[in-house]
This record gives sequence, C-alpha cells and structure tokens, in this order.
Amino acid sequence: MEKINTYIDQNKNRFLEELFALLRIPSISADSKYKKDVLSAAEYLKHHFQEIGMENAEVCETPGNPVVYADKIIDKNLPTVLVYGHYDVQPATPLDQWESDPFDPVIRKTDIHPQGAIFARGACDDKGQMFMHVKALETMLHTQSLPCNVKVIVEGEEEVGSVNLSWFVQRHLEKLQNDVILISDTSMIAKDIPSITTGLRGLSYMEIEVTGPNHDLHSGVYGGAVANPINVLAKLIASLQDKDNRITIPGFYDRVKEFSTAERQKMAAVPFDEQAYKKSLGIAEVQGEKGYTTRERASIRPTLDVNGIWGGYIEEGAKTVLPSKAYAKISMRLVPDQDWKEISELFKKHFEDIAPKSVEVKVTTHHGGEPYVTPIDGVAFQAASKAMEETFGKKPLPQFSGGSIPIVALFERELKSKVVLMGFGLNSDDIHSPNENYGVWNFFKGIETIPAFYKHFATLTKEEQ
Amino acid sequence: MEKINTYIDQNKNRFLEELFALLRIPSISADSKYKKDVLSAAEYLKHHFQEIGMENAEVCETPGNPVVYADKIIDKNLPTVLVYGHYDVQPATPLDQWESDPFDPVIRKTDIHPQGAIFARGACDDKGQMFMHVKALETMLHTQSLPCNVKVIVEGEEEVGSVNLSWFVQRHLEKLQNDVILISDTSMIAKDIPSITTGLRGLSYMEIEVTGPNHDLHSGVYGGAVANPINVLAKLIASLQDKDNRITIPGFYDRVKEFSTAERQKMAAVPFDEQAYKKSLGIAEVQGEKGYTTRERASIRPTLDVNGIWGGYIEEGAKTVLPSKAYAKISMRLVPDQDWKEISELFKKHFEDIAPKSVEVKVTTHHGGEPYVTPIDGVAFQAASKAMEETFGKKPLPQFSGGSIPIVALFERELKSKVVLMGFGLNSDDIHSPNENYGVWNFFKGIETIPAFYKHFATLTKEEQ
Repeated sequence: MEKINTYIDQNKNRFLEELFALLRIPSISADSKYKKDVLSAAEYLKHHFQEIGMENAEVCETPGNPVVYADKIIDKNLPTVLVYGHYDVQPATPLDQWESDPFDPVIRKTDIHPQGAIFARGACDDKGQMFMHVKALETMLHTQSLPCNVKVIVEGEEEVGSVNLSWFVQRHLEKLQNDVILISDTSMIAKDIPSITTGLRGLSYMEIEVTGPNHDLHSGVYGGAVANPINVLAKLIASLQDKDNRITIPGFYDRVKEFSTAERQKMAAVPFDEQAYKKSLGIAEVQGEKGYTTRERASIRPTLDVNGIWGGYIEEGAKTVLPSKAYAKISMRLVPDQDWKEISELFKKHFEDIAPKSVEVKVTTHHGGEPYVTPIDGVAFQAASKAMEETFGKKPLPQFSGGSIPIVALFERELKSKVVLMGFGLNSDDIHSPNENYGVWNFFKGIETIPAFYKHFATLTKEEQ
Repeated sequence: MEKINTYIDQNKNRFLEELFALLRIPSISADSKYKKDVLSAAEYLKHHFQEIGMENAEVCETPGNPVVYADKIIDKNLPTVLVYGHYDVQPATPLDQWESDPFDPVIRKTDIHPQGAIFARGACDDKGQMFMHVKALETMLHTQSLPCNVKVIVEGEEEVGSVNLSWFVQRHLEKLQNDVILISDTSMIAKDIPSITTGLRGLSYMEIEVTGPNHDLHSGVYGGAVANPINVLAKLIASLQDKDNRITIPGFYDRVKEFSTAERQKMAAVPFDEQAYKKSLGIAEVQGEKGYTTRERASIRPTLDVNGIWGGYIEEGAKTVLPSKAYAKISMRLVPDQDWKEISELFKKHFEDIAPKSVEVKVTTHHGGEPYVTPIDGVAFQAASKAMEETFGKKPLPQFSGGSIPIVALFERELKSKVVLMGFGLNSDDIHSPNENYGVWNFFKGIETIPAFYKHFATLTKEEQ
C-alpha cells in the first residue's frame, strides 16, 4: 500500500485536472441536443484507458449512446473484477440556482468539505466516482500491484434508465464474464461513518398527457362549462395518495416486503439527526407515509413523486386561458419485491380508469428498474468491508439506499455474479440538483480504497478455493 | 344611411389594410419584452385619429402603458358618446398551434365565415372591434353625419387587468365626461342572432408559489420523506372544488346572486346546440357545477380555472428530481354580487390555511374586476337595440357573457354614465387562443351599425329632454 499511496500523492493535481476535463463535457443523456457531447465524453474515456495501459479500449456501439469498454487480463486463472460506471449526467436545469457554471468545475470549501469540494454537474454522479476507478487502475498498473484481472464498462444512458445496456450485455455475455461487479455510484452515511449500500429502490417513470378541448380556449367564454385539463390533472394526481400518504393505486403494495421489528430497530440504530436534516433542507416539517420514520420512508418504502408538471400560460404576467393540454412526469421508487413493469401497468390502468370522460389521458412509460438487495455474507461484500475498514479505520455499516441503479438487477440476472455497491459520495452532494459537488477528500479516499478492495478480493477468493 | 353605406363600400379594402397594419404590431401587454410594440400601436392610433379628422389626438402617459385619446366636439349642447377600446393583445402562445403567423394577418374562408375571416392575434379582441369605431367615425366625419359629440379612449392594458385605467380616469374626470359609454369587446350569439351583452363576469387572478426544500433534490435519496411541492400543489388545487364542481373556499358563494326559475327559463329559451358545442371543442362530455346548464355555467355561475402550472423538469426525457418549487396561475370568474377584492382575500386566506407545514405557500393577486349587469330600459340600450335591428333586420337579444371587462364597473362608478356593450364577435372567434379570427362580414356590419347607434342615441336623447 505504501507504493500506491505515494503514487497517488505525487499525482493528485494531474488526477483532478483529468477529471475536470471530463466534467467540462456536458454529456446530458436526457436531451438529444447534447448528443455530440455524449460521444465526446466516450471518446475521452477510451483514449484515457489507452494512456493508462488498459487494453482493448473501445467505444462500443449500441442502439443509443455507446458503452466504453477496456480490460487488463493478467492471468486467466485469477479472478476478474468488472467495474461499471456511467459518463452521462443529469440535465443541469434550473441553471439560475447554480453558484458556478455546472460545466466549468471549481473547487470551493464547504462546512462538510473544509479541504474543498469539486462543484460541477457529474462531479459525484457519476463521473467523479467512476473516474476514481480509472485512477485506481492507473495506480495499480503503474505500481505493478494489480492482483487480478479487470474489465471496465462505462455507459452513457444511466440517467435515462440504461435503456440499451441490456441489449449490450446480452450481446457480450462472454466478454463480460467476471467474478464480481464493483460499482461506485452510491453514497456513505457520513465521512466518518463509512457504509456499503446493500439495498436499492427500483423505479417506474411515467409521463402523462391530459387533453381537454381540442384547442386553447378563453377562460371567460368557456370557463365553468368545459373541463380544464390542469384542474383535472391536479385532481388525478392528488387522488394517487391518501391522507396518510399511502399510494392508492390498487395492488401497488401487494409485493412490498414488510421488514420485521428487529430489522427496523437495527436500521434505526444508525445515527440520524432529523433536526439537522430539516435545517439543511430549509423545511419546517418532514412529510411521508404514516407509521414510518424519515429514514424508512427514504429507503425501504415506495414513493410517488411528480418530477415535472406543466400546462397553460407559464410566462410572465397573466393570461386567461383554459388550455387544451396539461402534462406531468411522475416517478415511483419501488422496493423489494415490487416489479417495475407490473407497477407501470398498474399505474397506467388506474390512471386511465379514474380519468373523467370530459378529458382524454395518455399514459406512457419512460423507463424503470427493479429494486435490489445484495447479500452481506459473500466474498464480495467482505472484500469491500475489509478495504473500507483498512482506509477509514472503522468497519462500514450496511445501508439501504433510496436511489435506483436500474442495471444492478440486470447484471445479476445476465452475468450471474454479485454486485458490490461501494460508493464514496454523501447525501449532501446534491446529485441531480444545482450545485452538485464531490469532496476532494472523498475522491482520493476512493482511489486509495479501490486497490485495497482488489487485494482483499483476490486473497479471499484464493482462500475460498 | 345611403351616403354612409356608399362610403364604406368604396373604402373596404383600405379599411382592411389599415387594420392589418395595426394587427402586425405585436402589442402584447403581459410580456414586458413587447413594450416597444405596445408604444408603436399607441402611436399608430394617434396618427390615425389625426388623419381621419378627430381632434386633440394624444398618447397620454400613465404609470404603465399609455392611453390614446381623441375627440370631436361639434356642439356642446348635444350629447356625448365615449368610445372605449384597447390596442393591447393577449400573448400568442402556444405558437405551434397557429395555422398562420399570429402577427401577419391573412383572410381565410371558414364554415362560419364563407366570405372570409381575418386570422391574427387581436383580429377580434380588440383591435378589430375597436377599429370598427375608428372607421365608423371616419365615415360619419367624411359624410357630415356625426349627430353628436364623441370622445375615444383606447387603452393598452386591458389584457392585464386595466391596472392603470382607474389612475387615468380619476385624473381626467372632466375631460372624459359623457352621456353614454360605447364598447365593442363582446360577442353576439350568432351571425343571425344579434345580441347585446347585459351581464359580464368579474375576475380574480391569483398566482401561487409553493416551496418545499430549499433546493432541488434527488427523488431517490429524499423521495417519500420530504414533501414534494408539485404533489402538494396538486392536492391543494384539487381540494378547491368538490365532487359537484362547487368551489370550496369558505364564503365564496355568499354574495352570488341566484336567478329565479322564470329568469333561468327565459335564458334557456335562447337557441343552443350542446352536441355542436361539444363537437366543435372535440370533447366527449361537458363538465361543470352540478345543477346548472352549460350556458348557465359559462355565464351566471362563478368558476375556478388553473390558467397555468409549472414545476420540476419539463424538458424532453426524464429527470428524477424532487423540485424545490411549484407554481400555478389560478383565476376565478365572478358573478353579481361578488366583490373581486373580497374573493381574492378569501382565496389567499383559504389557500394559506390549507397548506401543510411541510411547505411554504406564497399567494399574490395579479388583478381583478367586478362583475356587472347593465339595465335594458334606458336610452343607451334602446339606441343599441334599434341600431342592430336596423342593420341586422331583427331585434337583438340581451345576453349574459362569461367574459370580463374589468373597467365597466369602474366607468359607471367614476363617470356616472351607462355602458353599452355592443359587440360583433362570435364565441367561435377563438379570442385568447391560437387562430384568433374575426369575420370580414362582422367587421363591416359593425362599421355599418355604429353610425346607426349615434343616430338613434341622439334622437332618443332629444326626445327624452
């Protein structure tokens, strides 16, 4: 580890500069006008893999954005780690809430990061966390300390539901064979409370169009006599949750796994300061499903959030219009053992059922992903746990995360190997939000911890054989 | 009348060309980036009044958009007609629903207008209808047939609630003294069913901002535990109307005038084809307050319509955001004897009362106007009735309109004279909507009828003395 830490120390500034170059590329996958930037980010990574000594670096075509692949096979008898990450980022809107340009990374000190944090879209999710692996691999290759084989795939559609990753994986099953899949796209409980994510929520993302009259009308001439699609949409959305904030879609909770009192008590033992939580968000009260704590609501319970809504006149001033159409984007976070395709169907059917005859509704599914729980008794989890214990000086806690990484379930199904979610972010990193940032300390802690994972994984695998 | 009709016939094309020049100016009052165009429209009118022989033409300053004034006093012992109109127009959005450029007027034939209709923003509301008065005045001046004095005011803020007209009127009470106020900014029942508007709904236009967390959040990390301002806004809006589509704001109906069965039967006798109404709007069902007909819902009953709503991610694709803010523009149409300021206060108080502690709501009043009922037994109404009977060949029907002209009540209060709402539009003119249009037939029928009004008003006033 001495050699490794020395190499990291000597190259800190260059590592940051290389990450910054990647962060400057606005590779937003949700908006097709950034297609060229998405491709630039893929090319940048491919060249970078070649530079650090990885082999077979390639920008692999898919029906959508390409997947960047690279590997280093040192001995076919040794185990193989498959690293997964993504180079695409969320849209940066609303731009006026950013304190600096989302695509011009800067380091600023914050209360949580007195040594500085990198502010940029993708700083944490996932360019920053993915790039830790690239730099850890460079470090191991340069110090001749890579103890097993490695394959890396970096995709460009994670933020839009990894729509073509299944296509890619199914066509490269042989090439992607591995013994463990390592992903850094999650967060820890705190800088001094390392943790490994052992559960992820699934996702079902829907879009709704409500049509009333066939054209925009004068709200004085027609108001009161013709259904207003915005009023109707508000009523439909409101009816999706009852007064206890439980979701009213028939069958929605049928497969939801209820945790035992013992399990819930164990989760409740993890430190959590609700006053500090409310203060950091500027809210007077939390709000969620009756009978569950804030932590439970954000991890082991399903949700229904409107992610966007629009209709009618939304510019400056006033317009007395009764609009023809209203729209909403609605997503549900799912928990074991809900099935995202089934939930999407239940949502669609229910929404169509409750719509009044005075309007037409169109419900479409954007994308989704299955919820996931990872085992904590295998070699993979043990290797991650030992690695973090070594670099953080304390054993990491297992934790359920509220977010979704749709491909985790896919990997297990198609590649028959276990996934380790060893993330170094913090919930306060504001991923998907304005002023996304990633601690410089966290970035280098990740680069230091990843080689320790490889070492322990190689050793534990050998012991097991 | 012979001379008048000959003059109109000989100048038809020029009248249209002059209107088109005015329609080409995008004088949108709701959006400050059109301020220059608003001023251009005012200047165009001032010069036009000078050209046709009106006197004292002036662009009068106000704290907002100016009022154009002109007059022609032929004899101080004769009665004076005050004409009111507006040169500002509604925004043209959504632009993609227009079949031709909203600010490049064209004449196209339609089922309702086989002789052609003028398609442009403001074609009917109110540039087209206001310009009929300008051309009728030109005709009377040129044919030496103006039988009384005339004053004209054309304002530039009607579409944003005439916010400064009260300021202007109060400062020019002497100058604006008159015996009747004539306005063409309403519609008739049909081309073959002339009508005069005797009732107008009032308006209260509110804007709402709901704030949840102090910045946009990741809906996976926080979803379920933190109130989503869009979900909350939907619930609040939904709760404003009950299952019978009655408005739930306490006190809202307290001053609403209930019409007698006899009055309702009389209104119901006016021809109305609900099947054709639904077909023209492309809706399967009408929807409105239980216990009232479609015509009643759109005229003698108050309403609550969301005119605009927005929040979160509203671009292409998907973003899993739990937004910080959500917004809505909500307007209520009011009926006698509701008071718009009282209703705005009741709305604000109720909305703040029902908001949960997990969010903050900010409710602001955009503007409003009082509902209005005009008498049908005075000289003013009789003169309009006789004028229409003369040019349409049948007696016009009195009718309640669903729209609002906020200044009507103000005029009566400040200037102590009666208002006549003699409009020549049709409900199918799509004012405030894409493809606004105004029948060429209606435009010239108005120019022909207005001089008849002056003639009958002068005669009836003399008889009364």
